[in-house]
Amino acid sequence: MPQNKSYTLDELAGLLDAKLIGDGQCEIHGLGTLANAGVGQLSFLSNPAYIDQLAGTQASAVIIEEKFASSCPANKLIAHDPYVCFARATRLFDTTPSAAPGVHHSAVIDPSARLAASVSVGANAVIEANVSIGEGSQIGAGAVIGQHCVLGANCKLYSSVTLYHGVKLGANVIIHSGAVIGADGFGFAFDGTRSIKIHQLGGVTIGDDVDIGAGTTIDRGAIDDTVIGNGVKIDNQVQIGHNCTIGEHTIICGCAAIAGSVTIGKYCIMGGASGAVGHITIADKVQVSAMSLVSKSITEPGMYSSGTGHMKTSEWKRNIVRFQQLDSIVRRLKEIEKSNDKN
Amino acid sequence: MPQNKSYTLDELAGLLDAKLIGDGQCEIHGLGTLANAGVGQLSFLSNPAYIDQLAGTQASAVIIEEKFASSCPANKLIAHDPYVCFARATRLFDTTPSAAPGVHHSAVIDPSARLAASVSVGANAVIEANVSIGEGSQIGAGAVIGQHCVLGANCKLYSSVTLYHGVKLGANVIIHSGAVIGADGFGFAFDGTRSIKIHQLGGVTIGDDVDIGAGTTIDRGAIDDTVIGNGVKIDNQVQIGHNCTIGEHTIICGCAAIAGSVTIGKYCIMGGASGAVGHITIADKVQVSAMSLVSKSITEPGMYSSGTGHMKTSEWKRNIVRFQQLDSIVRRLKEIEKSNDKN
Amino acid sequence: MPQNKSYTLDELAGLLDAKLIGDGQCEIHGLGTLANAGVGQLSFLSNPAYIDQLAGTQASAVIIEEKFASSCPANKLIAHDPYVCFARATRLFDTTPSAAPGVHHSAVIDPSARLAASVSVGANAVIEANVSIGEGSQIGAGAVIGQHCVLGANCKLYSSVTLYHGVKLGANVIIHSGAVIGADGFGFAFDGTRSIKIHQLGGVTIGDDVDIGAGTTIDRGAIDDTVIGNGVKIDNQVQIGHNCTIGEHTIICGCAAIAGSVTIGKYCIMGGASGAVGHITIADKVQVSAMSLVSKSITEPGMYSSGTGHMKTSEWKRNIVRFQQLDSIVRRLKEIEKSNDKN
Repeated sequence: MPQNKSYTLDELAGLLDAKLIGDGQCEIHGLGTLANAGVGQLSFLSNPAYIDQLAGTQASAVIIEEKFASSCPANKLIAHDPYVCFARATRLFDTTPSAAPGVHHSAVIDPSARLAASVSVGANAVIEANVSIGEGSQIGAGAVIGQHCVLGANCKLYSSVTLYHGVKLGANVIIHSGAVIGADGFGFAFDGTRSIKIHQLGGVTIGDDVDIGAGTTIDRGAIDDTVIGNGVKIDNQVQIGHNCTIGEHTIICGCAAIAGSVTIGKYCIMGGASGAVGHITIADKVQVSAMSLVSKSITEPGMYSSGTGHMKTSEWKRNIVRFQQLDSIVRRLKEIEKSNDKN
Repeated sequence: MPQNKSYTLDELAGLLDAKLIGDGQCEIHGLGTLANAGVGQLSFLSNPAYIDQLAGTQASAVIIEEKFASSCPANKLIAHDPYVCFARATRLFDTTPSAAPGVHHSAVIDPSARLAASVSVGANAVIEANVSIGEGSQIGAGAVIGQHCVLGANCKLYSSVTLYHGVKLGANVIIHSGAVIGADGFGFAFDGTRSIKIHQLGGVTIGDDVDIGAGTTIDRGAIDDTVIGNGVKIDNQVQIGHNCTIGEHTIICGCAAIAGSVTIGKYCIMGGASGAVGHITIADKVQVSAMSLVSKSITEPGMYSSGTGHMKTSEWKRNIVRFQQLDSIVRRLKEIEKSNDKN
Repeated sequence: MPQNKSYTLDELAGLLDAKLIGDGQCEIHGLGTLANAGVGQLSFLSNPAYIDQLAGTQASAVIIEEKFASSCPANKLIAHDPYVCFARATRLFDTTPSAAPGVHHSAVIDPSARLAASVSVGANAVIEANVSIGEGSQIGAGAVIGQHCVLGANCKLYSSVTLYHGVKLGANVIIHSGAVIGADGFGFAFDGTRSIKIHQLGGVTIGDDVDIGAGTTIDRGAIDDTVIGNGVKIDNQVQIGHNCTIGEHTIICGCAAIAGSVTIGKYCIMGGASGAVGHITIADKVQVSAMSLVSKSITEPGMYSSGTGHMKTSEWKRNIVRFQQLDSIVRRLKEIEKSNDKN
């Protein structure tokens, strides 16, 4: 990949709103970790656990809190929150290609679709009737945008994203390849011999500044919409069932499985491969650890887990036998306690 | 989305085979829940837990069992099973766009493919050699149908569905975007230093009335076919390994992971994110709860679960330490019982 | 599917490097299991548990170890490792269609892309600027290859595979439909009110002889690359987070979820739907059982598990109540032990 952006530290101090201690003319052409960065690279110290790496770093500059500055031999960009400052720096050095401007000749766009002038559309993309797309949005190769979708400004849909009909995106929404938004929710009524499909009449409404990972699926609502709040960040291969409501700024890590009609609060973190059963509510600021299942509503903020932790399979096998006897084991314990009480 | 279908209650009573109590000329233009429906909308009471919502509903009509009719102030459509009747009503009000008739000029169709006259094919779809597609089937934009696939009548493949070569679908099969049917099963023989691929010579056979969710993958068989029975409903992001057999009318919820050579009976429900290890058999009418792993065959109908339930992480951490000592804890209990017996 | 390859046993003995005992002119046109194979089919005995099926097999020939040959009434192909020999035989009878030679007229290929002469490209595939593809590689219909990707010789990308910019594949890499390689890793810095995107500046480097299943996602690195070693086999719907390193010849089964910055050793097996939390290291030759979560580093080879095993839900409910009391239960046990010691 080409990597041809570079900035002086003076420029970076301005762009990142950081205070420079060191050589303002030093040229920075990339980023690196404290351990691996070399000459011309910018690093950062966010987690104090890595403070010992400062002395030996080959980075030309380090983003760092003022209180640790004296331990750093390199040039320093002083920031209140070095990790946030580093995040901003990654944007400056980003080499992700922008879509070519304009509409590729192979794209298939319904005449009724309304695309703002600055929208770009990749090869073989398909945009159906009555779609509306805001300024600066990019539609990747092979993406399919169903009828009546509305996309705000500066959205970026990577190649092979699918939006079903009637999906609404706010501004600055990023959707990665293979994601499918607005497929039918999984609803059936069993008539005693077979499952009758409940047609899914709702849509999907997604707020501003939402990121959606590769292969993630978000189903349309049964009657009302499935709703994803502003600032929500969703990783790869997450499943969000119909009529879920995900509160603003919540983070959902990879492979999480959220059943239908789940309401998740604001500023929550659902860990990787975690799950939630249907029709429950999770309060604001709840964190669920990896591969934990939320099996009933959670009403208070805090951290929640399920599972057993891993162990050697040989020991585990003995313990799960006991787990399956656990209720009777406790009854035996009670017997002893009762008998001891009598004595 | 446009929402322009409407019916009088007289019409609905006929279409839904329900008995009307109320104003046959009342115009219904949509569906809603008891709590949220407004004027001109039809609701339903299926779960008696919601009976208290009847008095306050603004719905113009309610699908309801005869025995609850007197509690309902609105017009009533009397049905034996209101949920099934509601499912049928969703079909009447469905606004999912049908594919445009005919074959889009950008689709790439091998001359040897045999498409019934009423088949529709979306933009940029690819249909390879010797494919056969039955009357009324719809192939979405960008879908790819491999050589020698056979599709029955009235199938609907949404955009970006992939069928590998030699996949057979019955009639009325719905497949959502991003699903991949017939990729290679995961089979390798380890020769001591590396894994030798076992080429997957079987196919996939899918019955009638099967629904397959977005991003779901069903692998082709190693020698014989992977088989999905009639009426099976599969949600999003489900993985079904090679040579599985899924019995008729079984329901597999989102993110379930079924390893290879698993036989699942009829009328089962595999919960969301549940799993089954390879080469086992699950009897008819088994229900497996969310995120539970079936680690050996199940021979009797009933409900099965694994896992621990979620709790506060702080408490959970103490308990999983104990879980990992569980066998030794029970041995200590036995020592006490033995010693008490002696006394 | 057409099934028109056939070989005499003399030919097969040569091709598979096996010793024939029996009729060299016997014609073999397909493969089958011992139980299901018929006349003209070749079977194998690998697992001694199936030795009783030898007597009744209708297979025309069986791949078998020398020591079991006398128990087999059919023609025999004697092999040191019958399963590996069978894997080689599947290749001979494979009917997976090869891509049509050449570049389909509907494919969109940037003029700066360098495709070796024997590369084939399917309908509606998109190949972006500065891509390089080695001899014999096949790009399926609708696949999208981002800028600056480098593919070695004899790679096979099935339809609708997505490679983001800057992904490097070795030789003989197979990627199944719907897989997405190189999407952004999931990295954000929280500034107290919202999540700031950490742009992902690394790429993905994949070695030789790697297989990647349908719907699998492998994210690009934050700064350095995500690395998949030679000979790694990855099943469907696996998620591999940014900056993971997967050691050579490791096997990752379907639906496994590997968080970011995980290092997995060589010759490991991650079971189906297993998981690993971020920033841990797993030693060589570790096997993790299905749906187990690796929640801290594993430093020694061996088998590891988590979870509880499934049971009837009615019993499970009683036991999980006890699990949630486990720490206090053990404290009660200790009380008894203390009091018994005093007596």
